[in-house]
Parts: sequence; C-alpha cells; structure tokens
Amino acid sequence: MTIDRAVAEKLDAEDPLAHLRDEFVIEDDALIYLDGNSLGRLPEASRDRVRQVLEDDWGGHLIRSWPDRWLELPQRIGDLIGTRLLGAAIGEVIMGDSTTVALYKAISAALDARAERRVVVIEADNFPTDRYIVESLAQQRDLEIRWVTESGSEGVTLERLDEVIDPSVAVVVLSHVDYRSAALLDMAAMTRAIHDVGALGVWDLCHSVGVVPIDLSRDGVDVAVGCTYKYLNGGPGAPSFTYVDRALQPSLQQPIWGWWGRQDMFEMGPGYDPQPDMRSWLSGTPGVLSLAAVEPGVAMIADAGVAAIRAKSVALTELALRLYDDWLAPAGAVLASPRNPDRRGSHLTVTHPDAQHAMPHLVAAGVIPDFRRPDGIRMGFAPLTTRFVDVHDGLAELRAIL
Amino acid sequence: MTIDRAVAEKLDAEDPLAHLRDEFVIEDDALIYLDGNSLGRLPEASRDRVRQVLEDDWGGHLIRSWPDRWLELPQRIGDLIGTRLLGAAIGEVIMGDSTTVALYKAISAALDARAERRVVVIEADNFPTDRYIVESLAQQRDLEIRWVTESGSEGVTLERLDEVIDPSVAVVVLSHVDYRSAALLDMAAMTRAIHDVGALGVWDLCHSVGVVPIDLSRDGVDVAVGCTYKYLNGGPGAPSFTYVDRALQPSLQQPIWGWWGRQDMFEMGPGYDPQPDMRSWLSGTPGVLSLAAVEPGVAMIADAGVAAIRAKSVALTELALRLYDDWLAPAGAVLASPRNPDRRGSHLTVTHPDAQHAMPHLVAAGVIPDFRRPDGIRMGFAPLTTRFVDVHDGLAELRAIL
Repeated sequence: MTIDRAVAEKLDAEDPLAHLRDEFVIEDDALIYLDGNSLGRLPEASRDRVRQVLEDDWGGHLIRSWPDRWLELPQRIGDLIGTRLLGAAIGEVIMGDSTTVALYKAISAALDARAERRVVVIEADNFPTDRYIVESLAQQRDLEIRWVTESGSEGVTLERLDEVIDPSVAVVVLSHVDYRSAALLDMAAMTRAIHDVGALGVWDLCHSVGVVPIDLSRDGVDVAVGCTYKYLNGGPGAPSFTYVDRALQPSLQQPIWGWWGRQDMFEMGPGYDPQPDMRSWLSGTPGVLSLAAVEPGVAMIADAGVAAIRAKSVALTELALRLYDDWLAPAGAVLASPRNPDRRGSHLTVTHPDAQHAMPHLVAAGVIPDFRRPDGIRMGFAPLTTRFVDVHDGLAELRAIL
Repeated sequence: MTIDRAVAEKLDAEDPLAHLRDEFVIEDDALIYLDGNSLGRLPEASRDRVRQVLEDDWGGHLIRSWPDRWLELPQRIGDLIGTRLLGAAIGEVIMGDSTTVALYKAISAALDARAERRVVVIEADNFPTDRYIVESLAQQRDLEIRWVTESGSEGVTLERLDEVIDPSVAVVVLSHVDYRSAALLDMAAMTRAIHDVGALGVWDLCHSVGVVPIDLSRDGVDVAVGCTYKYLNGGPGAPSFTYVDRALQPSLQQPIWGWWGRQDMFEMGPGYDPQPDMRSWLSGTPGVLSLAAVEPGVAMIADAGVAAIRAKSVALTELALRLYDDWLAPAGAVLASPRNPDRRGSHLTVTHPDAQHAMPHLVAAGVIPDFRRPDGIRMGFAPLTTRFVDVHDGLAELRAIL
C-alpha cells in the first residue's frame, strides 16, 4: 500500500519540533537535504555567534578576549555536551582537536593503562579514521589488531564481540552508530563484556550524539569521543569532544603534552605537569572560530531534548523504511540498515547497482543524500531540519531515478 | 637625546606600508596594540571571507562545499605560505592541526627517521609547548633530552649548540625567533651544524613567519612548523602549517594516521596507505571556519612583501630601542632582547621589578603589550598595523607608569 504524500504532510503538521527548522539558515526551502549526518545545517544563532566572535571579540576586544571570553570555551562547551547530551557529570567532557586526533589521544591513553596487554579490538567496518588510528598505534607499539566483523546490516553483535575478546585485549574501539548501516550497538551490554575481560572501551559517538539517547555514566563507559559537525550542527570540521569517566581520569594520560594541558599554563614553567582535570586533555590553542560555532547548536538540541529528537528520528526512518519497501525494493534496492528501530540510528543506507550513476541525477533534482562506495546511498535524517515531506519527496525522486 | 613625537610622525608619513592599516578592522584607532605577535588583528578581507564561508558555503552550499570549495584548502593555503613566505616549493607545506599537534607529528616523524639515536636537543627556554611535546615524546620513547641554554638575551648561539650536539643526537628543536627575547637564530649555520652530526632539525617559525625573511630551501631546513595567528593575522587559534623538505618526504611518516591522510580518502578502504605528498600529514577533518580565515592575511603579507615588512619591523624595534634607552633604562627597566637588529625578531622584551603591577595600568591607559612572567613586558610590533607613533606613545605611557 503506497503512502500518500498527505501522510507525510500530516506528520509534519503534528510534529512538535517542526518550528525548530525556522531557527536555521535555509536559503532554498525546496532543497531536500538528506546529509545532515555528514554536515548539519547552520543555525541562525551560530551564524550570529561566529559574527560576534569574529568582529567583536577578535576585531575589537583582541587579545583580551582570551582571558575574558575564550579561555573557558573548551570546558564550557564540553560540559554542555556532557551534561545535556551524554549523561556525564560536570568535568568529564572537554572539547579538543579533530575527531581523528582525539581518537589518537583517547586510544593511546587507554592502551597505556593496559600496557601489559598486546591486543586491540576494532570493528572491521568501523569508520576509516578509527581504523587507521588503531593501525598507527598498533604499529608504534607492536600490538595485534583483532577485527570484529559485522553481522550483516545489524552491525556488531554481542556474540561477535564475545568471540574476539579475552584477557589479552587492552582496548576495544566501537562506534555507537555505524556510519554506513546506522546499526546502533548496545553500549551497556558491550561495555560490561569489555570490562568482564578487564579491557577498556573507547566509544565513537560521531553518528549518535544529539540524535540517540546516550547515558555514559549509567552504561559505565570508560572513554568516548564524538564529533560536533553532524547532528550537533557545529559547522564544517568543528572540533571533537572527549569524555573520560571521572574515576579513570587519574590513570589515563593523553600523549600530546602541550601548554594548554599544563597546570598554570601562563607560568610557562619547566617540566610538563598536567592539569588535575579534563584540561589535561588539551594540547594546543583551539581554533576559536570553529570552536565557538559549536555552542548554539548544542544548546538548541539540549533545549529540544534528545528524547523528543529521538522520537522524531525514529518516525522519520520508519517512514523512509515504508517507502523503501513500497518503492525502492521493487526497483532493485537492498536495505543495508537494521529494520528494528531500537537498533538503528538516524540514517538509512540502501544499496543499488546503479547508485553511483543515480547520485548526480539526484543532486540535479535537488535531493542531497550521501554516496558511500561502492554502491550505497545513505540518507540522513536530521530531526531539527528534515521534514517528513522531505523523506517522501526525496525517496520518490530516488525511485524515479532508479 | 629624547626623541620628539615628530620623529615618529615623520616615520609614519614616510612609511610605504602605512596604507595597509586601513585594510584591517580597527574599532578604536587610539588603542595602542602591541600584542600583534600574540594575536594579529583582523583583516577586513578575513572578516568577509569568514562571513562567506559561514553563510554561503556552510549555510547555502552545504555538503557540496567540501568537494567544490574546502577540500583543497589545506594544500592551497599551505602552498601560499610556503612559496611566498618560506622559500619552499609547491608541495612542501600543508596546513594542519594546532601548532602543538603539528610539533608532535613533526618531531615524532623526525625521531622515527633517526630511531637508532637516543638524544633529542631543545632550547631550555623554548616556548613551553615545544618543550612539553619533546618531554612527552622522550618519555614515550625513553630518550634523553639534552637542553641547550641561551647566552643571555642573544639566545642560543652556534657555540652553545655545538657543545651539546654529537652523533648520538636524533633531532634538534629550535625556535627561529625566541618568544620572549626575540633572539633570531642563524638558521643556515645551525642547520649545517645539525646536519654535520647527522641529526635532523625541526624549526619552530611561530614568531618569525611573515615578519622575518625565511628561505627554508636555501638554508637546507628539514622540517618546520609555524603558527598563523601572530604576524599572519589568521585569527585566534588558527591552524598551524608544516613544512617538510621534499627530499625527506618519502622517509618521514607522521604518527597520527587519519582518513584525510590516506590515498583516495573517500574509498574508505581497509588499511592505511598514505598519500604520496604532503597530504599524508593530514589527519582529521580541518576546522574550516578557522582554516579559511588564514588565507586573506597571508595573501596581504605576500603582496606587501616580507622584505618591506622586515624593513619596517626593524625600524619599529630600533625606535623602541632608542626610547628604551632614553626613558625605560633610567626607570630601572632592563633590555631582554638583542641590540643587534640582524639578530632580533619583531618584538622587544624589557624586564622590570614592577612589570606585573604596571600591566593593568597600561591596559587602562589603552596600551596593550604582553606580560611574561615573572617580570617581562613584551612589546610586539606588527608592521602592517603598528604605527611609529604607537611605539612612541606606548613607551611614553610605560615610562610614565614605571
């Protein structure tokens, strides 16, 4: 039974988050943007904030902005993300470098804390940068990498994980939501399994933060890293955040010692002596324009509430799944994401032999999903800006092209 | 003989670079800003560029800006800096992470290339982050750190360097211009001395790039890192650049392997396989707002010409030195910078027992230098925006307060 567009229109009319779209800069209201999970849209408040940092802070207040306005940003924004989106306490999250550098630091510190163990476990299909970071650290330390494979579109299961972990494992690196399939892992159960063998877990939250409920404290998570330019709308290449369980903080030391991580940094004294808190995870001077742009989007998401965002996210992906069944599967597309919404993030990937050829036609028709080689079309649904009619019209266009 | 303000006014009237000040955002023309070596002022073109990236690229063009506008920025801006300011060839410089992370990568790669040697040499008074990075790498690799001390305000001499280097030394880390004294090292002679013992040199260009002539190719430099938020006016926490001599590129591998450094990054394939060029020094996604802001300031400096900028810089510091002799030395200040302009960068530091107490009075009077504990007042002269009357009036205020 084909879904009428009126169904999508009705869902939009009843959507309690619909008004939030008006708080974003949207030049072309007809554009169907299904890539908010790669680069989230620009909130008007972020535009205003960057202008203010640029012109008032840098242009006018100059160097005085460091003590007066900027120095606290890594902690303040980190705590905002931590307490409102991650279930963390004050002082457990800090903003940092790129996600890649943050992963390097986090995994390196975790490996140091299990230095007597020689194995690091990571998903074979984890995001490339996670895998490459593990490869670099494994080479530097002569460690064995043990790959855990996915169980089809359901992602890594607890059973698969259990098969590869044992007391030789130092660290396990997992993505909360898979960047291709959107498989959502059971963070609590897997963390227990990791702890059962005495290992530490490092979670990549890039594709879950801001759109999936996360409670790192409840789930006993050791270390987590996430990016802010997807569902948090932080802007292109916006800095990452790092979470470290407070109980672990004294025993984890990140490897890139810089002046921002040292106690009393303006003393500029001899010998590195790390800050007693999450500031010890800082290395160099943060890029303020990129950093400051993160805060308004996070605040908006925190105010909307992750529960409400998750509810809309599930409704968006469920609508897309019904349209896939009706329109795309008959056209030869294959679902590469979990059917169970409880095990799925906020995007859907379908594969099709003609996916690569379809992409330019989709873009020309005003529909922007993401292409994942060799044959995947990834549709990301950002609940703050994606309308139900976007899902309907975008998939209708995809059907027409396929 | 006291210098009359008319002397400074005449120098301004004859200054061929004076018109460039009009190309900056200057809210308060009376402010005497002597901290352009800590945070350079905002060029109008940079303000416009950030607005464009923010609103047109992010807000409007969205994810399509990556292939169309952003992906090439690290190389394009790196090459602009390299070819116009560093005497490098195309393909020898790339933009990267924070200066601290860039130093970590550069020193780590250089140490790997001399893995059989167990000593790393660094100035005892080098900028803190350089020292802390060397400490972290030395601890991770169980290396000996050999400190080279300065010869008073003249900085590290070739003789001092020769005393500490020998064939056990893997890497020598030096700052081209000292962040406190402004001592300008002889890059060519020191690089020869480093090579004579078979070591590699890593140069920190933070306080020299854009204001002192640099010719890395001529001087045979191996690796260099510099920051863009001082004399290059790139904005708060703007990203660093890294130079690697082309001949060394195949043998130096940076340690933080990320998706941006991998060949054919969107293949997202298994196994890290580095780019065949300076892109192998990239790790994660760059912060585009901070990165894009760097280009206009660099272009302005390149167009003005480092030779002309250096000439004005020397004239500014020479004027300050005369005023120091006339006004500050009699008030108990002590010069902590070289007298010889050929061995001096673009700032002057004076020490005074009451320096710390003087700072708030100076700021209240509209004069902004930098304070360096325990008793240093550092006056930075940015030739594109600092007027000769600023030097006169700023030092007059300092005299009055001391």
